[in-house]
Amino acid sequence: MSVRFGVNHTPRAGWFHAWLDLDLDQIARDFENIASLGLDHIRIFPLWPLLQPNRTLIRPRALDDVRAVVDLAAQFELDVCVDALQGHLSSFDFVPSWLATWHRRNMFTDPEVVTSTATLVRALAERLVGAPNLIGVTVGNEINQFSDAVHPDPDRLEPEQARLWTEMMLASAQAALPGAMHTVANYDAAWFTDDHAFTPQQSAELGEATVVHSWVFDGTGQHYGGDSFETMHHGAYYLQLARAFGRPGRPVWLQEVGAPLNVLGEQDVERFIHETVRTSMQVPDLWGITWWCSHDVDRSLADFPELEYTLGLFSSEGVLKPAGAALRDAVAEARTSEARSSGEPVEADGERPDEVVACIGADPRPVRAQFAPGGAVFTEWMEKARGGVQPRIRISTDEPAQVGDPDYRSGLGGAATTMGQ
Amino acid sequence: MSVRFGVNHTPRAGWFHAWLDLDLDQIARDFENIASLGLDHIRIFPLWPLLQPNRTLIRPRALDDVRAVVDLAAQFELDVCVDALQGHLSSFDFVPSWLATWHRRNMFTDPEVVTSTATLVRALAERLVGAPNLIGVTVGNEINQFSDAVHPDPDRLEPEQARLWTEMMLASAQAALPGAMHTVANYDAAWFTDDHAFTPQQSAELGEATVVHSWVFDGTGQHYGGDSFETMHHGAYYLQLARAFGRPGRPVWLQEVGAPLNVLGEQDVERFIHETVRTSMQVPDLWGITWWCSHDVDRSLADFPELEYTLGLFSSEGVLKPAGAALRDAVAEARTSEARSSGEPVEADGERPDEVVACIGADPRPVRAQFAPGGAVFTEWMEKARGGVQPRIRISTDEPAQVGDPDYRSGLGGAATTMGQ
Repeated sequence: MSVRFGVNHTPRAGWFHAWLDLDLDQIARDFENIASLGLDHIRIFPLWPLLQPNRTLIRPRALDDVRAVVDLAAQFELDVCVDALQGHLSSFDFVPSWLATWHRRNMFTDPEVVTSTATLVRALAERLVGAPNLIGVTVGNEINQFSDAVHPDPDRLEPEQARLWTEMMLASAQAALPGAMHTVANYDAAWFTDDHAFTPQQSAELGEATVVHSWVFDGTGQHYGGDSFETMHHGAYYLQLARAFGRPGRPVWLQEVGAPLNVLGEQDVERFIHETVRTSMQVPDLWGITWWCSHDVDRSLADFPELEYTLGLFSSEGVLKPAGAALRDAVAEARTSEARSSGEPVEADGERPDEVVACIGADPRPVRAQFAPGGAVFTEWMEKARGGVQPRIRISTDEPAQVGDPDYRSGLGGAATTMGQ
Repeated sequence: MSVRFGVNHTPRAGWFHAWLDLDLDQIARDFENIASLGLDHIRIFPLWPLLQPNRTLIRPRALDDVRAVVDLAAQFELDVCVDALQGHLSSFDFVPSWLATWHRRNMFTDPEVVTSTATLVRALAERLVGAPNLIGVTVGNEINQFSDAVHPDPDRLEPEQARLWTEMMLASAQAALPGAMHTVANYDAAWFTDDHAFTPQQSAELGEATVVHSWVFDGTGQHYGGDSFETMHHGAYYLQLARAFGRPGRPVWLQEVGAPLNVLGEQDVERFIHETVRTSMQVPDLWGITWWCSHDVDRSLADFPELEYTLGLFSSEGVLKPAGAALRDAVAEARTSEARSSGEPVEADGERPDEVVACIGADPRPVRAQFAPGGAVFTEWMEKARGGVQPRIRISTDEPAQVGDPDYRSGLGGAATTMGQ
């Protein structure tokens, strides 16, 4: 199957607050922009407090709005992945009042909360039954960040609880939409932070594909530079890492990747886009690449981190940006190359000159600093990839090197997307 | 001018989430219920995150919705007070995402936040210009609770900051709607809690009337009993206290009072309503009584404190409850008595047999435990009122009795409406 290329849809009129005043004409203009780049899918983000303002009130109208947007996308030949729990978007948390302040309860472990959240996921999936252009439901948008120490007042939990929560959400989507490509979208703490309860194993075993969100402001861009080999291979490395944890042949999905100007120079953006697509295409079992994001946040909206105003392929006026043209061209080129090599894997398994062995031990929370930018696995992978072929990563249950061990090399500081997408 | 009688409108379909799917036919049914009781005004509560989802995005449609409800009320000959910042309602906080978690800033003191909040108040007031049935804008609904130690992660501030914040909000309403009766609605910590930054002086000096929210679950009902003299006189006492802090003749408004079943027996409710109206009517300068609330919260909605499901004058099916009939009759009776004594004050100032002197000293945060249920002022007032005439309260800047002093008597534990209205 051909690799899929898409974009995360950020409504250009009103950002995600557009759901409050859904205007399908405005959304159609966005989709027209997106389709003009030759992209084949989008990811959309309804807001949790609008879908479920009270724990036991799921608004039919909000579900209808989501379905209307999915159906509208079909008119532009765009398939759609629907994210079920926002949750978190571009530094803003959208936590329903029934989970906040006086009603603060653990989002992931409180039985009433988890049951009610699962009910929402199921209701949303039910409203999507029969949509021919539906890809599937993604659980949360980096909702694992609510469990992380970097979050203000986090909901702490154990790996087995994180796994159970994820399984419940996926089962709820599956119950209504069996066979669709439901996934879980964890941000990089799941891969790079040692004590994070959401783990690489969960990402690689639960759902129908292993999802990664690749952001080079995780230390890579800062440390190696916006035009470095490491920055250009960040997405590919991350996909290889994801692949290493999964069963052979399990799809990997670069579900978010963007060109953030806090670590890239303006002059780096187009090359970054071309190289990210080119290097990611070398990863076997790649399902697709979904760029972040379709439209710049309008500067009339306040309080976003600066980079969020500039991540779009289109400006907030709907004008194509050089980044958009670069992605359009990179995608066209990738499809041509893919067509030429049709019938053969881009890279045959077992024929690599070498591999990188990642020792994770038996602990359900593996030592993940080694995977983070600057960590031992990251560094060895980049060194070997400079030879021209991306090494495969092999997971070993041998104990990893520890602090004090000569082989120990930790990351540059671990996950850095504290206020990320 | 005659005393006004009204009710706080709690939409029976969907509670305040009704704003998400505003259905004027449903609201009209509510107003028809309300008007049938002979009431002349309502108080309404749009939700802050819907009016201002981004700090610099005030939704025209949300303002239009508020205006539509105000205009609809006119069809039922109901005047309207619009509360500008919810904020807080019946245990649920509605804090916009731009003020929460990653974007946590002090609601009352951060210059950008305060300026943007003032902008919302002004925009809301501007949308109400020309509404012949508008009473005015009330700042917040007990939004002072966000500053109190009982609140999870409170926004602490000093009395002068609280005053400045309140002045800014009132000036914003005033700028668009000069001459309307704008007020500030502080919950009882402002009156009963010693270290609370919102003070009785502010309540009694800012805005066009001094507002009190009288809830007998503040210790009064628990300690003295649901059928006690103290419970029946709670509203009157509180109005007298409010009056004591204001200039002579300043209106006092019992803006919230309800019959909570966590401290009242079912059998106490009707008498409580009659007595609350009767005893409050004895307070000079009473502007009005606004009952909480119009409709029970539907039990299909989860997580409310139990008492919230039962405070309505009408059931969640729109059926008149005994409480509604009692308020209708008490209001009719009060109007008749008022008509009979027309032209004369209910009670002439200076003719009281005695008064209660409340010493507050010079500190801008007076010792307020003495005002709380069980406190020295409360207790002395109730004792004297048993003689048949409500004593006036006189504020003295002499130093109050302190702990250890034989005259010291603190409250039963201070303000108790931690998850109140």
